[in-house]
Amino acid sequence: MDSPLKTIISLRVRYGETDQMGIVHHVNYLHYFEVARTELLRECGFSYKSIEEKGYLLVVTESQCRYLKPARYDDELRVETWLSLLGNVRIHFQYRILRGEEVLAKGYTKLGCISPERVPTAIPEELREKMKPYVEEPSS
Amino acid sequence: MDSPLKTIISLRVRYGETDQMGIVHHVNYLHYFEVARTELLRECGFSYKSIEEKGYLLVVTESQCRYLKPARYDDELRVETWLSLLGNVRIHFQYRILRGEEVLAKGYTKLGCISPERVPTAIPEELREKMKPYVEEPSS
Amino acid sequence: MDSPLKTIISLRVRYGETDQMGIVHHVNYLHYFEVARTELLRECGFSYKSIEEKGYLLVVTESQCRYLKPARYDDELRVETWLSLLGNVRIHFQYRILRGEEVLAKGYTKLGCISPERVPTAIPEELREKMKPYVEEPSS
Amino acid sequence: MDSPLKTIISLRVRYGETDQMGIVHHVNYLHYFEVARTELLRECGFSYKSIEEKGYLLVVTESQCRYLKPARYDDELRVETWLSLLGNVRIHFQYRILRGEEVLAKGYTKLGCISPERVPTAIPEELREKMKPYVEEPSS
Repeated sequence: MDSPLKTIISLRVRYGETDQMGIVHHVNYLHYFEVARTELLRECGFSYKSIEEKGYLLVVTESQCRYLKPARYDDELRVETWLSLLGNVRIHFQYRILRGEEVLAKGYTKLGCISPERVPTAIPEELREKMKPYVEEPSS
Repeated sequence: MDSPLKTIISLRVRYGETDQMGIVHHVNYLHYFEVARTELLRECGFSYKSIEEKGYLLVVTESQCRYLKPARYDDELRVETWLSLLGNVRIHFQYRILRGEEVLAKGYTKLGCISPERVPTAIPEELREKMKPYVEEPSS
Repeated sequence: MDSPLKTIISLRVRYGETDQMGIVHHVNYLHYFEVARTELLRECGFSYKSIEEKGYLLVVTESQCRYLKPARYDDELRVETWLSLLGNVRIHFQYRILRGEEVLAKGYTKLGCISPERVPTAIPEELREKMKPYVEEPSS
Repeated sequence: MDSPLKTIISLRVRYGETDQMGIVHHVNYLHYFEVARTELLRECGFSYKSIEEKGYLLVVTESQCRYLKPARYDDELRVETWLSLLGNVRIHFQYRILRGEEVLAKGYTKLGCISPERVPTAIPEELREKMKPYVEEPSS
């Protein structure tokens, strides 16, 4: 079974992302996920900006994150993202956040495609095709 | 079976919490959860501030949120929180966010108690006692 | 000379608003200013939400803040706001942030009224009238 | 008169940094300033992280920003920073934010150096030396 394509981005922790525990405040991992998600779409040739300009929205319907080890100010982090489900209307993104070889966090977000009328709608076929290589096959 | 005690707080959505979809950006729900969690501890007579001053930390090890309906700028929201697990070291908080009678989001956070040496440690017994009425009995 | 009316709000510092210095990260004061500004408008009978719904925007064109003493997690803060200028198109809000009698920060924001076409436009007369008592007379 | 050295960074606007006006929420410019400031220090060979590890803090005592044109989601921005004052205890950073050749915002932050005892202290001489080329000469 082939591994899926993954989008990998780097980012550096900003001071304002820390809290008084001296570590990255946990909500910021969801911002990092979002940055990675944007880049996966760009790799597919569909900037999320252009998707919204065409009247579609990808809305987050569920998010989850497990915080394994703390990230700290000025750390260079790597965020990996790929898909675990590419449905007609729904997309599930998976994420891992690493510092070097250490996995700091794992999570997912579930998104739904909605039309300008704010009702669920099919993901444009052209976009779905481009995203297929990023889908992880379920292990059997 | 009795219902657990719940902490209920009100808050008003800030402008800076919206995004260009015209709704509350999804990460902010986790901030709202945190505000509610702080108040549950205060109701137990243990401000989280005083817990940290005694050298304990409650660190978030997992968060999840399901976004059912969007919250908007200036909405008055109600955040309810209670516990689904009160272990030796671990506490699981449950949350619901409502606008009037509409449930907008549901989620949980798992926290672990750690000592000043940054190793897992038992939740102080006095605090555990006060939190017990907030624990939801598993349905049988 | 009479003092202007002031809008006074209370808020409690959220954990996620601190940084690793153990104090409120400085950018959050601007969020507090915004919360206070929203309430001044509400006191005038014009929720900012309704202003946007009528097609007007009040956009921030300049912000300034002087940080005198640090605010900390769980502090109950008081934010005062009033106006130093109420022009045809421009409004200048002044702010003070206090903890008890201690002044922690002072600042201002300058805002401009713009129309749905995104050009500068006069502040609706009805709103201007209501805001006049909040204007601080220049000292002579 | 020579121009000062400037630190120039690039960053891309995150979705969560927008607000319901469809533009970058104004407080985020201060986060961008902070990212640029961190890089200026790194160029001087003193990561801000290492400065804090040695027990010094650089605390923001004043911030100002003028918002000239809106930045939008996914924009690639350039942030320039240099110094307008390098005192014994105080440093004033200047900033410009650009998209291509358009200047979107200008601002400054004033910082003071404080010791682990949280009292004002002289900026370490070695760091001051490295920062001197970044100081803009006052025009005469």
